[in-house]
Amino acid sequence: MDKVQQLKTYLADVVRLQQTLALLGWDQQTYMPPGGVAARAEQVATLSRIAHEKFVSDETGRLLQEAASELDGQGYDSDEAALVRVVQHDYDLETRIPTRLVEEIARTTIQAHEIWANAREGNNFAAFAPILEKIYDLMRQQAQALGYTDRMYDALLDRYEPHMKTADVERLFDGLRQELVPFVAAIFERLDAVDAKPIHQDFDVDRQAEFGLKVIKQLGYDMTRGRQDKSVHPFTTGFSVNDVRITTRYMPDYLPAALFGSIHEAGHAMYEQGSAQSLEGTPLAGGTSLGVHESQSRLWENIVGRSRGFWHHFYPELQRVFPDQLGKVDVEQFYRAINFVSRSLIRVEADEVTYNLHIMLRFELENALLEEKLAVKDAPEAWNEKMQAYLGITPPTDREGILQDIHWSGGSVGYFPTYSLGNFLSVQFWDKAVMDVPSIPADIGRGDFSTLLGWLQQNIYRHGRKYWPAELTERVTGEPMQTRSFMRYLKAKYSDIYGT
Amino acid sequence: MDKVQQLKTYLADVVRLQQTLALLGWDQQTYMPPGGVAARAEQVATLSRIAHEKFVSDETGRLLQEAASELDGQGYDSDEAALVRVVQHDYDLETRIPTRLVEEIARTTIQAHEIWANAREGNNFAAFAPILEKIYDLMRQQAQALGYTDRMYDALLDRYEPHMKTADVERLFDGLRQELVPFVAAIFERLDAVDAKPIHQDFDVDRQAEFGLKVIKQLGYDMTRGRQDKSVHPFTTGFSVNDVRITTRYMPDYLPAALFGSIHEAGHAMYEQGSAQSLEGTPLAGGTSLGVHESQSRLWENIVGRSRGFWHHFYPELQRVFPDQLGKVDVEQFYRAINFVSRSLIRVEADEVTYNLHIMLRFELENALLEEKLAVKDAPEAWNEKMQAYLGITPPTDREGILQDIHWSGGSVGYFPTYSLGNFLSVQFWDKAVMDVPSIPADIGRGDFSTLLGWLQQNIYRHGRKYWPAELTERVTGEPMQTRSFMRYLKAKYSDIYGT
Repeated sequence: MDKVQQLKTYLADVVRLQQTLALLGWDQQTYMPPGGVAARAEQVATLSRIAHEKFVSDETGRLLQEAASELDGQGYDSDEAALVRVVQHDYDLETRIPTRLVEEIARTTIQAHEIWANAREGNNFAAFAPILEKIYDLMRQQAQALGYTDRMYDALLDRYEPHMKTADVERLFDGLRQELVPFVAAIFERLDAVDAKPIHQDFDVDRQAEFGLKVIKQLGYDMTRGRQDKSVHPFTTGFSVNDVRITTRYMPDYLPAALFGSIHEAGHAMYEQGSAQSLEGTPLAGGTSLGVHESQSRLWENIVGRSRGFWHHFYPELQRVFPDQLGKVDVEQFYRAINFVSRSLIRVEADEVTYNLHIMLRFELENALLEEKLAVKDAPEAWNEKMQAYLGITPPTDREGILQDIHWSGGSVGYFPTYSLGNFLSVQFWDKAVMDVPSIPADIGRGDFSTLLGWLQQNIYRHGRKYWPAELTERVTGEPMQTRSFMRYLKAKYSDIYGT
Repeated sequence: MDKVQQLKTYLADVVRLQQTLALLGWDQQTYMPPGGVAARAEQVATLSRIAHEKFVSDETGRLLQEAASELDGQGYDSDEAALVRVVQHDYDLETRIPTRLVEEIARTTIQAHEIWANAREGNNFAAFAPILEKIYDLMRQQAQALGYTDRMYDALLDRYEPHMKTADVERLFDGLRQELVPFVAAIFERLDAVDAKPIHQDFDVDRQAEFGLKVIKQLGYDMTRGRQDKSVHPFTTGFSVNDVRITTRYMPDYLPAALFGSIHEAGHAMYEQGSAQSLEGTPLAGGTSLGVHESQSRLWENIVGRSRGFWHHFYPELQRVFPDQLGKVDVEQFYRAINFVSRSLIRVEADEVTYNLHIMLRFELENALLEEKLAVKDAPEAWNEKMQAYLGITPPTDREGILQDIHWSGGSVGYFPTYSLGNFLSVQFWDKAVMDVPSIPADIGRGDFSTLLGWLQQNIYRHGRKYWPAELTERVTGEPMQTRSFMRYLKAKYSDIYGT
């Protein structure tokens, strides 16, 4: 495997540069003093350029070809075959976009971020509209450069969820919407059934941090190969399989923010930590797509972390940490409180039940804007109409509507659906894990997460990027992605809580 | 200045890579989890190689030549002329050492570090001797590659203190030794004159940290362009003129460690923060040599931080922070305690008076080993003999003798003298500052450090690397480096304290 080894050695430089770029980003969001901003931008630009140039070089193309021709004996499942397959996909994507376009997108989105932040602050969509038009124009150019056969959106979606098609997402969303919209409406009739006051109290931040850390360690987040810091926006990042870090944001008057935020990020981090050591230092380490990544954060956060079994184990300890706040709240009241559903206008505050409706809306608008079926100037109204249709509420301002998310200003069109795909997959993976290892729910009730983590590591994590999301899903669950399991999970859990 | 701009643009990549390497190092010593070690070594190796290749390329040589030919109109003091001059020096150094030798030194010193650490732990010089011989052999090869006319040591010294000659250091040390050895002996007769107990008590680490931070902010360390973290070995590092960080180590039973350690590192950091903004992102930002760097850390730590005036201002507050420990210790007792002299065998624990004798010893041994006038196997005995001759004490073990320092195992031969050069320069710069701005001592007594910092910024810091150390010294003080001022400072301060 001389040629494959050559490819691997050559790509190692790109991987080490990318890992270092991740460190530059982590530091910027955790510890960097304000004065460091300008030089940090230059450092990031320099390393990005060097990594990009190395990766899109003819040398990569030549080494890929040579390695491919040497693979005859290697099975599809081998690390070697996967390396060639995955890198060829990345290489095609990166080489198809002309440098001029890459640079223009970078320049435009840097400007757009500031314009968006000010527009949101001032609730002024008109101020954001011109650059948003430009961004969608650049996205169209990017889609043309990347190429597509069916829908323009396919080209953009593929960057986040390889080989997923727009039509598939539409089919999944259409099926879900039919059941979800009436289910949400029924719950909205009974919002009084749950009292969320127990989680809205004063919770000392240091105690929150200590308890949260204990929880994620017990789940299996390996702190000898990770760490937790504070940042304004929580995130997970990795500088190798053996150094995967998370950040958390603490709110002194709202317990779930840091607690479930930490579990969410720990879910991402355990996935990254779980890549086989043989993949470390290669482009195959890490998660195979944003959707699969989100399936892990949501599985740990929601299916595990917001379950009765989980709190059966952890609640007595949480009561000891916060006796004044929770001493008289029983575990069932607490369980209901952390699963309260609300008429939220804001995606990042949305509960499990309504969350995917927020995503569908964005996905539909992105397609319409991209295909020029909707003008940017008409987008706020379209947003508000869909909010009314799906959730029965209309944002009083664009700030609580179309201006709420950062994604479009950053050129991330095609990203949103991966949140929902992650939700769907989380239940499919969970169901299969419990089918394979029926003791998992009881184990969780005893505070033992090793059977679940072990199953996930064995079936998902260790493969890193070796399998495309759809392949992985079929391999693991025996069927393609579907929303049936997710809807069944929602109905069982929330009908019980809300008596619908 | 088209060609100079081209040179600057080309070198910007090298600078940004080096800044990023500094971040990789900072993170490794502050926050990196243990699992990150292996990948971090690869990241550092990759970025170092890319930066080195870019810098030693023919392109750099060509751009240097073209830029030089364009400089006719530019004065010696211009940023442009300085850039060409300093980079040409760096380029000559880096291109003269063959890649094979660079790699062998890197490989050997990685091994040597572990061997040295174990040898020190086990007090077993024989275990360290073979690789130390190899390191000195590689150092000779390096000196040959770099070239020298007089002494082999010149070539190595130049890497840390550009254009300084071994013979100059010998002359300085010879002059100092004659006065210093008897002065130390006289103080050693009167060690009882100072009671160091006040600084050896239990001092809550959090309060130490808070007080120390307040002090270095007041000195002028700009925390909007820097920060302080903890690490096992304190250090200063910078990722741009506007992001210069320090680390500190806290000892719960010894106040000076963190307090003067913080001031020392803040001195380094203020020098780095003080480079003109026009130098940011160029190879001219930063300190011009290790000696000049150390002059700033020692000036702030010793001449300012261990002075009566400084504590006249800060002591009442320190007493408020530690009322149980210092409430009954008056400022004069405290002043004497923080300036106690001891018969220390260990360089890093040595006081101002004895410190340079530790350095002279090392400098002499390095020369003798390099020139093969001393065999590695005989070095421990030579070390002990010199300790007896200079300090009147003999290390009971090699662990407290020749095995104490990390430098040689890292291939840093020629580095030690810069500590002493820094001490000498610190007093020369201080004397000139006070001559120019006579209010400085009184300002310090009032807690106003802006006149001193302003003078240092104006005369030293803003120039970055534009002037070689000897040029800078002449420009600033009007004379070359000398030890007269330093010795006069020592005698005045310590004769007063010890009554010699």
